[in-house]
Amino acid sequence: MQSNKLVEINGSRLWQSLMDLAKFGATPKGGVCRLALTDFDKQARDQLITWGREAGLTIVIDKIGNIFMRRKGEDASLPPIVMGSHIDTQPSGGKFDGNFGVLSALEVIRTLNEKGMKTKAPLEVAAWTNEEGSRFVPVMMGSGVFRKAFTLEHAYAACDVDGKSAGDELKRIGYIGEQEPGNHPMGAYFEAHIEQGPVLEAEHKTIGVVKAVLGLRWYDCVVQGQEAHAGPTPMKQRKDALQAATNIMQEVVEIANRYPPHGRGTVGFVQLFPNSRNVIPGQVKFSVDLRNINDELLNKMDKDIRAFIDKISAQTGLKITLTEVSYFKPTAFHDTCTQAVAKAAAQLGYSHMDTVSGAGHDAVYMSHMVPTGMIFIPCKDGISHNEIEETKPEEVTAGCNVLLHAVLELAGQV
Amino acid sequence: MQSNKLVEINGSRLWQSLMDLAKFGATPKGGVCRLALTDFDKQARDQLITWGREAGLTIVIDKIGNIFMRRKGEDASLPPIVMGSHIDTQPSGGKFDGNFGVLSALEVIRTLNEKGMKTKAPLEVAAWTNEEGSRFVPVMMGSGVFRKAFTLEHAYAACDVDGKSAGDELKRIGYIGEQEPGNHPMGAYFEAHIEQGPVLEAEHKTIGVVKAVLGLRWYDCVVQGQEAHAGPTPMKQRKDALQAATNIMQEVVEIANRYPPHGRGTVGFVQLFPNSRNVIPGQVKFSVDLRNINDELLNKMDKDIRAFIDKISAQTGLKITLTEVSYFKPTAFHDTCTQAVAKAAAQLGYSHMDTVSGAGHDAVYMSHMVPTGMIFIPCKDGISHNEIEETKPEEVTAGCNVLLHAVLELAGQV
Repeated sequence: MQSNKLVEINGSRLWQSLMDLAKFGATPKGGVCRLALTDFDKQARDQLITWGREAGLTIVIDKIGNIFMRRKGEDASLPPIVMGSHIDTQPSGGKFDGNFGVLSALEVIRTLNEKGMKTKAPLEVAAWTNEEGSRFVPVMMGSGVFRKAFTLEHAYAACDVDGKSAGDELKRIGYIGEQEPGNHPMGAYFEAHIEQGPVLEAEHKTIGVVKAVLGLRWYDCVVQGQEAHAGPTPMKQRKDALQAATNIMQEVVEIANRYPPHGRGTVGFVQLFPNSRNVIPGQVKFSVDLRNINDELLNKMDKDIRAFIDKISAQTGLKITLTEVSYFKPTAFHDTCTQAVAKAAAQLGYSHMDTVSGAGHDAVYMSHMVPTGMIFIPCKDGISHNEIEETKPEEVTAGCNVLLHAVLELAGQV
Repeated sequence: MQSNKLVEINGSRLWQSLMDLAKFGATPKGGVCRLALTDFDKQARDQLITWGREAGLTIVIDKIGNIFMRRKGEDASLPPIVMGSHIDTQPSGGKFDGNFGVLSALEVIRTLNEKGMKTKAPLEVAAWTNEEGSRFVPVMMGSGVFRKAFTLEHAYAACDVDGKSAGDELKRIGYIGEQEPGNHPMGAYFEAHIEQGPVLEAEHKTIGVVKAVLGLRWYDCVVQGQEAHAGPTPMKQRKDALQAATNIMQEVVEIANRYPPHGRGTVGFVQLFPNSRNVIPGQVKFSVDLRNINDELLNKMDKDIRAFIDKISAQTGLKITLTEVSYFKPTAFHDTCTQAVAKAAAQLGYSHMDTVSGAGHDAVYMSHMVPTGMIFIPCKDGISHNEIEETKPEEVTAGCNVLLHAVLELAGQV
């Protein structure tokens, strides 16, 4: 698939590292359960640092536990070109989400070491703390504190379901470093990641050149009806919260279809009260997730859902509330980085396409600070956050080769 | 409201008994939590029997714990006219559901005693075990065993969430009697009950002459889609189980509206997998509750829902299964009894109307064996199975007066 003229990473070594790291928190079904700041997270961090030291890297850890491992550049005055992602996983996570980005970065370094290649700017491998947010919210905690999207104290105070705080757990596993988060210059940031969607696979492309990350607006919608016995209550005397809710649930999808090609509309969470077979639902609470590529479209979607809810409320006489609970603004990646990724993919001879990320990544926070780019590789059936998450070795190799050459482009090969 | 010529029950005494019995398992919000075969159930049973003994009644308990309290008739060869209901409640139950039927029956006896009135046939107060089915399924357990709808062994083996069996719990509270369930002749059965619906209140009627109980078909419906990340998955590449499900949920209501006036269609229970805000639902499981007044209409409703599901499955390509999990056949009450109820209401001068019961009652099982009738009184806002369940004292009195005179009609006043 690739040109013979270019340096290539060692795909077998990278694959082996992925499999080795996946042992920390391995699940019987072939996945990984390595929640942030658990013993498994500590073990994986220790392994990563051991590998970094073996590769001659200098380790810096900041106060939120983000790990930076640096390879010197020829020009000490230049900020590093950073490559990274995260090594925490979902409770039923896979081997590739996050880990691929971190271990690809390490493999880039190993390859350069092996070939005796030097760069003008320093290079760094970054592993961000608690990207998943499964155990502690907010998600993207390490990169968020680094970006100053929220404070270190806010992050430390986050508690898991057992009431343990992120701060205490970070201390317990020995990963509170000395550096002030964000006090760490960067020249650019690259993140290689599995797509977590079905587009590349459907289009038969090996590399996705990520141009942007969709913005999202999250809402809670509550429909208030009147709980009543399903038998004795005639249809005309009902205030069935679910029936009103189903109309809104369908409209969420209609709205997404109204603003293509990047509109997304999802109801993923539904809760009925009392949720009993023979009781007309008195209340239905559900989530609404709207995404699109810019704020203009997102705002139109917001306006549409609010207008529709007003209409249904007027028709049914039921009280319906829509509360926005989260907003992530749409992000366009920097041309310097996306062009470097596209150029590398082309030079290496990989099939590739421009794409967007529908999910958030640490790269989003980085993009607010420095030129940033992302490289997607396909994952089987678009499945991630799942033990059966799967990616082919040749695609892993391809993604890492693109990372290598995009980074060389920005760091300057000497 | 009532004619001056007829004997009347003591409304204050009945109300006081309702309030006294409601103390066993009383909740802070004014309701009752008295699950079947708990200590509270035992205490309420003991109180009922104490009252029965004070009224000179002979107590018989059968092997499933049904309580029968008999007042002699003048003709010992006649089977008793039985009045009853149940004294177990829902976890958040009220003071009237079930209890009204049992204590009205006791009040009828007290009134006859007080007035020195005799009947040809014996009279009995019946309290059926575990009508609610909240702690142990099947519901209407005592009357169901009595009817031989299922075996005593099946009922004994039912376990609560803590793994305690109905048989062990019945033994523990000392209510396994000697009589073989069903080995207990009856001449007729009357059950006074709150309506548990909004019809009488809306029609401003004091008494409902219950002509029939709707039949029901219960189903579980499962829509199988494909779980996927809400961000990276474009709308056209989704297999969103919830979106298919919402169409079926709406059709359940449409079908009920298609077969008026007694058609009922309810989706009361919905469960999404994984039920997470940013994951497209991979599977949705929900209940379908269809009711109508005869099997012909119920069968049409069944045919309609199956045809609609086939259509949605074909349109979406998703696998959808519909499994029937329960069936209760429609029940028409016996003319002898419904006429006695209507006549009593008319003679007493109460506003009344023919009505149906949408919910099941112990009277349904009795109707399979002997002439049976039910008397409904309104409940505020149609609300039952709720701590705020409420009924006016004058309506309680009216219902009991109707019970008295309907029973006298069938038992034969001497």
